[in-house]
Order: sequence, then C-alpha cells, then structure tokens
Amino acid sequence: MIERFSLNQWTTRYWPLPDVVAGCAAAEVRGVGLWREPVAEYGLTRTAKLLREAGVRATSLCRGGFFTADGALADNRRAVEEAAELGAPVLVLVSGGLPGGSRDLDGARDRVADALAELAPYAGRYGVRLAIEPLHPMFCSDRCVVATLGQALELAAPHPPEQVGVVVDTYHLWWDPDAYRMIGRAGREDRLAIFQVADWTTPLPAGVLTGRGLLGDGCVELRRLRQAVDAAGYDGPIEVEIFNEELWAMPGPRVLALCLERFREHVLDG
Amino acid sequence: MIERFSLNQWTTRYWPLPDVVAGCAAAEVRGVGLWREPVAEYGLTRTAKLLREAGVRATSLCRGGFFTADGALADNRRAVEEAAELGAPVLVLVSGGLPGGSRDLDGARDRVADALAELAPYAGRYGVRLAIEPLHPMFCSDRCVVATLGQALELAAPHPPEQVGVVVDTYHLWWDPDAYRMIGRAGREDRLAIFQVADWTTPLPAGVLTGRGLLGDGCVELRRLRQAVDAAGYDGPIEVEIFNEELWAMPGPRVLALCLERFREHVLDG
Repeated sequence: MIERFSLNQWTTRYWPLPDVVAGCAAAEVRGVGLWREPVAEYGLTRTAKLLREAGVRATSLCRGGFFTADGALADNRRAVEEAAELGAPVLVLVSGGLPGGSRDLDGARDRVADALAELAPYAGRYGVRLAIEPLHPMFCSDRCVVATLGQALELAAPHPPEQVGVVVDTYHLWWDPDAYRMIGRAGREDRLAIFQVADWTTPLPAGVLTGRGLLGDGCVELRRLRQAVDAAGYDGPIEVEIFNEELWAMPGPRVLALCLERFREHVLDG
Repeated sequence: MIERFSLNQWTTRYWPLPDVVAGCAAAEVRGVGLWREPVAEYGLTRTAKLLREAGVRATSLCRGGFFTADGALADNRRAVEEAAELGAPVLVLVSGGLPGGSRDLDGARDRVADALAELAPYAGRYGVRLAIEPLHPMFCSDRCVVATLGQALELAAPHPPEQVGVVVDTYHLWWDPDAYRMIGRAGREDRLAIFQVADWTTPLPAGVLTGRGLLGDGCVELRRLRQAVDAAGYDGPIEVEIFNEELWAMPGPRVLALCLERFREHVLDG
C-alpha cells in the first residue's frame, strides 16, 4: 500500500521543486501534492514536463478557494487550468474566512456555495475535480468558514460528484464526534476526492498554523481514520501534509524518509 | 436587561475575591461566576457570607470535570458541595482531554458519560445542576473531549434536566454550522443552564488559552446568539468570561466597567 503515499509539497516547504520530484522518484514515491506558488515559480509547463519525465504524478494541486477575496473567481479558474495542465485530478479548495471586519458568517458561507456553482462546471470541462476542504474550526474566522466534513458535504451536494468532492484531512477533523459517520456518508455520496494525514500535538504555537505534528507524535487515530476512509470506498493517494517549522528546517530527503517511516508505522496496517 | 449581567471571576483573574464582590455591588452588578481556587483561598464559608452581605449571588461555580484525572469523582463531589454552600445553582463541567499518551477519544468520551451517571444524582441531592460545557475543538486533546453543543446534549440526555444541563459559551461554539439548531434543541429539552459570552479574535496566542476577545473586538455575532438563547427560553444570567492577558493586567474596576459598556453595546438589544 506504500504506493498510495504522496508527499504534499508543503511538508518540505523549502525543498526546491526539481529536488522534490527527483527525491520522490529516488525514494520510489510516485505521488506529490503540489502548491501553486512554487509551481508558478518553476514554471507550469516546465513542472508538467518534469513530472512526466520522472514518472511522478501530481495527486492534487493546493489550492483554490479564498472566495471572499477580490478577483477570486478568475483566480480559481486559472487554478483549474493549472491543475489540468499538471495532470492533477484534484484542486483543493480552502474557502477563505470572514472578510475583514465582517461578522456575517452565514453570508460568507453562502458566498462559498455561490462560487462553487460558478466554478464546478468550469472544472468539469477541464476534467478537474474540486475538493472542498473543511479546516479545523480554529481557522474559521481567518482561513476557512467550512469547518466540518458534514458542512463540506452539504456544499458539495448540489453538484455532480465528478465535479465536486471533499478533502478528508485527519488534522482538521479528528476531534469531530460525527467524523466517522460523515466519512461513511462521503463514501456513499461518492465525494472522497483526497485523503491527507497529519497528527495533532499541543501546545499549539502562536498563530496555530504551523502546529501540525509528524505522524505518530500526536493523539490522532491515524490508522483508524485511514481504515474508515478505505471502508467508505476510497483507494486513492494518501498525502502527508504537515506544516511544522522543525520539519521545514530539516533537509528534504530526511523529511521524506521520516514521513515514509512514520506512514508505514502509523497509517498502514500494522 | 443589564440585571442579567454576571462577571465571571476569571475575567478579572487577579482581582482579590472580596474586591470583586465589593466592586460588583458598587457597580450594581448582582451576579458573579466564581472559581473554586480563589474561593478555597478566601474560604468557602467566608465567601458565602461575603456574597450574602453584599447582595451578590453566585451564578455558577467553575469548575468540575477533568474526569480522566485520578480522584476525579471525589473532587467533583466536593465541587457539588461547594456550589451548594455558595448558593450557586450551576456547577460548570469541563470534561478534561485525553489522558497523557492516549489516542482513545471514544474511550475518553465514554468515561465522561460514566462520570455523569455517578455525579448527576449526587448533584440532584444538593440542588445543584451540572452544566456540561463543550469547549472549542482546539481544546479537544488537552482540556475537553466534549467539542460541540450537540455532543453535550447527547451526554445530558439520559439525565433529568434539573440535574444536568449544558453551557452555551459564544467563544466555543460560534463557528458551529449547527449552533443555532442545537441552541433551539437545548431549549426544547430544557438544558440551558448558563450562557457565557466572549469574542473570537485572531491571531491566537501560543497555547491558545488566553486568546479570548473583549466583547465587540472580534467576529462573533454575540447579539444574535443571545437572542437565539433567549428565544429558546433562557432568561437566566449572562456571564462575561474572557481569558485575556491584557485584561488581566488592568485594574479590576476598569475591566468591569469595560465589560458592562461592551455588554450593553454588543449583547443587549441595540
């Protein structure tokens, strides 16, 4: 099952893109989760060529969304086009938080629904699947008003499953009393677009963004969640996506080796 | 409606207890939410007498819970007795997180249910109502495995409403897509034991415990939530409970005045 392992690029944030791809190929890792900024920096066409030549595929592109920002829709259309050119089957959407100074949470959530209605057919034409990512509720005000898997499924419901799915990320939903029930529902409704893993550790750092733990360092039942996602019918890639200053300070190949080791130990069957 | 205002003692953490009571009386504030540690320091019987003489009542006692700790049940029985002696109608329960090194979230949640079954009849005999407090999911691992109002209501369900209710705290549940629906359900099931208000601001500080915002400084629809709780049939005290280093550094009377001003502006009808 190690062939399902995919390295999300942000786990090795400062590892240059060609090195990530070469490093993955050398470690027989065949999937990477890409981010738009480093791809743009290296060049879109050039990145696509690099992947093809190395035999590494993009398992997802991070990220579209942030729908309350100016020009968001045009930018999201470009993100869809980029995913298509990279051969990434999934574009991860982080919805964005409340506009500055706003308290209108329902309104912000309505705008996400509106943006999806615009974007889904466009993604469909490019053969890219939008994946709504519920983020942990501690990000609700400033990053993502979509806070639970149940809410993501409600937002996906009006759209064909091949156009709109959801992200299941262990870091964001491990705490949810409805997590397993909603993973089952996501499977039945054919919405499981991508599965991401990171662990939960405390204390959280200031700003909380970079507090994610290496697999096995925290309290998340990673294997149980992976089994639940599998039981719901998902057999796609499993991206390791960890935002962590200590990992970012380490050499890329070392982080990749560590992630592979922990993935075997804590995510795969024992 | 200002008579519903209650100062939770932790908002003015370093204000000595007799000064809190005198300060409230001087400001015509008739309710305080007390904490066990400062009450124990000043003396339980002495605190009860102080309240009676000042004409200030305890709206709640914080807190019982932390059920996974050794000796938790005996300590919770003492907390019930203390609430009774103080005339506090409500004992707030923060369930506790996962035991050190554990990943068994379901198990920890089951132990909360077991502890409630032991404690509820005991509280009933003392005329004290237990109030299960769902904490924001960012506290799930280390402070409170009860993360949503819906989950708190499920835990309360086996017990008579006069023995077990729930806390609605705006800080902890403002993000929940089910918040308003669950407030309605809490009202129908007669579980609304106490209502607490604080605002949500970012960035969160390291450790996230002291990040609560002064009413009006953040993005929470405080008035709308207060109206929802009222519409669900709650007409009890509204405790202002804000953990915030800046407030803690200010003189108690100044904090109380500020809370009253913001309470009028952001919680009461405009």
